[in-house]
Amino acid sequence: MKNFILPIEKLIAEFSHLPGVGRKTATRYAYHIINSETQSVQDFASAMLDAKRLVKYCSVCGNFTENDICDTCAKGDRRQVCVVAEPKDILALEKVRDYGGTYHVLHGLLSPMEGRTAEDIHIKELLSRISNDNVTEVIMATPPTVEGEATAMYISKLVKPLGVKVTRLAQGVSMGTELEYVDEVTLSKALDERREI
Amino acid sequence: MKNFILPIEKLIAEFSHLPGVGRKTATRYAYHIINSETQSVQDFASAMLDAKRLVKYCSVCGNFTENDICDTCAKGDRRQVCVVAEPKDILALEKVRDYGGTYHVLHGLLSPMEGRTAEDIHIKELLSRISNDNVTEVIMATPPTVEGEATAMYISKLVKPLGVKVTRLAQGVSMGTELEYVDEVTLSKALDERREI
Repeated sequence: MKNFILPIEKLIAEFSHLPGVGRKTATRYAYHIINSETQSVQDFASAMLDAKRLVKYCSVCGNFTENDICDTCAKGDRRQVCVVAEPKDILALEKVRDYGGTYHVLHGLLSPMEGRTAEDIHIKELLSRISNDNVTEVIMATPPTVEGEATAMYISKLVKPLGVKVTRLAQGVSMGTELEYVDEVTLSKALDERREI
Repeated sequence: MKNFILPIEKLIAEFSHLPGVGRKTATRYAYHIINSETQSVQDFASAMLDAKRLVKYCSVCGNFTENDICDTCAKGDRRQVCVVAEPKDILALEKVRDYGGTYHVLHGLLSPMEGRTAEDIHIKELLSRISNDNVTEVIMATPPTVEGEATAMYISKLVKPLGVKVTRLAQGVSMGTELEYVDEVTLSKALDERREI
């Protein structure tokens, strides 16, 4: 006997599929499940099945939704489109509350290292929205990383020729940070893009 | 909208109950589930329910089992009992393959810090086995930590008066380690318990 009994091994194998979870962590999770009340394990299993069954992608922007079209696309101004990498980025932006437009989720970023090309992320869908919805502005809100910048550049080169204004989230020093701890690239960007007051 | 849609929030809440999982990790796991095939999510959910339904504790030693009595208790010599903190410790010991006795799982260690007393771990069950099964030797295989040592001392004080031999796993330098990297306590133990060759 080098392994746990079959039902435990099966559960450990399932937990090991989660991102960043190895056998040790999976074993810890499996222990937790076995030591939980039957009712809570049933709740957990139904939450999992429900999430898979009920959550769809908005047919317009690709955000998570329970309906065909998500709330933001139903209410927001479709002529303004904010392009993000993942649905969770929409949550962050929605906290700001002063954006009245819609979003577009790429579901990934261009990454030659990981073999993700323009066909693997939702760029085609963005281009068809631009021609269908009279889009006037595309705001690139991909993260300020190498991949995020490359994706923003790539998309702006496709979108600009269509006569659409393309903007990018401003880069600079964050609110509340001490200047001495700001990295050089950010500080250099902040200096380059300094504004008159 | 500061949160995800309800089915996702529910799943994130469930994942957050796992040990050491915060909202960020739980969100990552929930993403993974939503992006998985329906079939694999169903397999995951059944593995969870099966583990909870099929896994019981051996009525003799407290190890995980699908039956009333686990394999080791069915086959092993019940007069020799190796006391461990958790079922996973049995796996480690069984890999050695040259132990023919049985085990006893405490399901925890004495810990005043975490409020775990002798009533909270399976010491009573061990004592009743000693009187019922003609136990001749109790091997303390609790981990070499403060709590593990304290638990071993506590149990040995209860068991010795019953005329049973109590032993403890030897402590010393591990195979293959460089002496310069061995901690002082271990080295001092290894010196104290040096053997003639």
